[in-house]
Amino acid sequence: MFFVYSLDMQETKGQTTKNHILREGLNLASVNGLINISIGGLATKANMSRSGLFAHFLSKEQLQIEILEFAFNILEETIMTPTRQIESPINRFEYIRKELPHWYNRITPKIPGGCIFIMASLEFDDRPGKVRDKLLEQQNKFISFIKETHDDAISKNEFIGNSDRDHFAFTLYSIYMGYQQYKKFFGDENALKHFNHIYTQLIGHCQGKEILKD
Amino acid sequence: MFFVYSLDMQETKGQTTKNHILREGLNLASVNGLINISIGGLATKANMSRSGLFAHFLSKEQLQIEILEFAFNILEETIMTPTRQIESPINRFEYIRKELPHWYNRITPKIPGGCIFIMASLEFDDRPGKVRDKLLEQQNKFISFIKETHDDAISKNEFIGNSDRDHFAFTLYSIYMGYQQYKKFFGDENALKHFNHIYTQLIGHCQGKEILKD
Repeated sequence: MFFVYSLDMQETKGQTTKNHILREGLNLASVNGLINISIGGLATKANMSRSGLFAHFLSKEQLQIEILEFAFNILEETIMTPTRQIESPINRFEYIRKELPHWYNRITPKIPGGCIFIMASLEFDDRPGKVRDKLLEQQNKFISFIKETHDDAISKNEFIGNSDRDHFAFTLYSIYMGYQQYKKFFGDENALKHFNHIYTQLIGHCQGKEILKD
Repeated sequence: MFFVYSLDMQETKGQTTKNHILREGLNLASVNGLINISIGGLATKANMSRSGLFAHFLSKEQLQIEILEFAFNILEETIMTPTRQIESPINRFEYIRKELPHWYNRITPKIPGGCIFIMASLEFDDRPGKVRDKLLEQQNKFISFIKETHDDAISKNEFIGNSDRDHFAFTLYSIYMGYQQYKKFFGDENALKHFNHIYTQLIGHCQGKEILKD
């Protein structure tokens, strides 16, 4: 299933310009790091003047936060919103398995540097402030979404009752990180195979299935 | 078991100075990122002149590579070398479980920003060059060490014969990343509990044990 990020038809010209800037900013930040984004560099990339950009963002911090919000909207529209429309939690997890590893390719054009959230959280983990707070808020929201889906699977008897939501979310989050690292850093062509295998084991375990032996 | 990184008694004064610089460089890079290290900034931190530092490192790239080698020596001395002295592979994995999550605290003084390798690999994954090559070489060396220990466990009948070395290494690498992220970024006090639980499940699975249900 392919998803195309579409701008709200009702948006003003100012919002259109802002979305254009944010999309360019997300592209840059996904490759060079959110921490290294600059209003000057982004102005060049977006074919605007520095002062034109400053009319939309009062500070680098505000720009970084709005880029994160822009990116999280894409994650929500590609993963969380369609998942919530699926009735069976097991089928929801199947959708997540298929779509989550490359959610950032599900918009046109693709986000060139991939997942911005992992890198940004490593950049900002030693830097308390509003950007770090935003990253924490977003990723906790995603983890809560995973835990709620897990609990829903229990309440609908699709997962066994003693499956642990926290261990589950930790494992899913970990193999998502591991997948991104194997894919992008190691360039391992089996990255998705590993992710799918461990993900399927995890879900099977929560269903009380005998664990796969291969 | 605590490990203190000790300088070779035979080293020259020049090597002592270089090790002092590299240790300061590792501290800085672990917090601010390897990509953001500068010869000027490090000279200030190490109480040296820029030209004094340039006498040891011809370029920023060489400095970055030597900081990585310095860090990897610590990882080897805290994890790989002592592990290889343990006969039973299961006991080796138990040593790894206990020591790997916080290997960077096993030297005096601790490395303030924690594991440099994950962040550096995310910084350099879009930047082909000698630093990226060094990171790949080191992390592939670590992954090979895990796979060899896995295979040794099979050959000594401690793991079941059809346990998959690649899935195993992927999972261990992933939960190591997940642990670092939960601990440092989320500040989750249960990070180590999650890591230990999934790690123990993984080992138990490779032993052919019925999977833990909690």
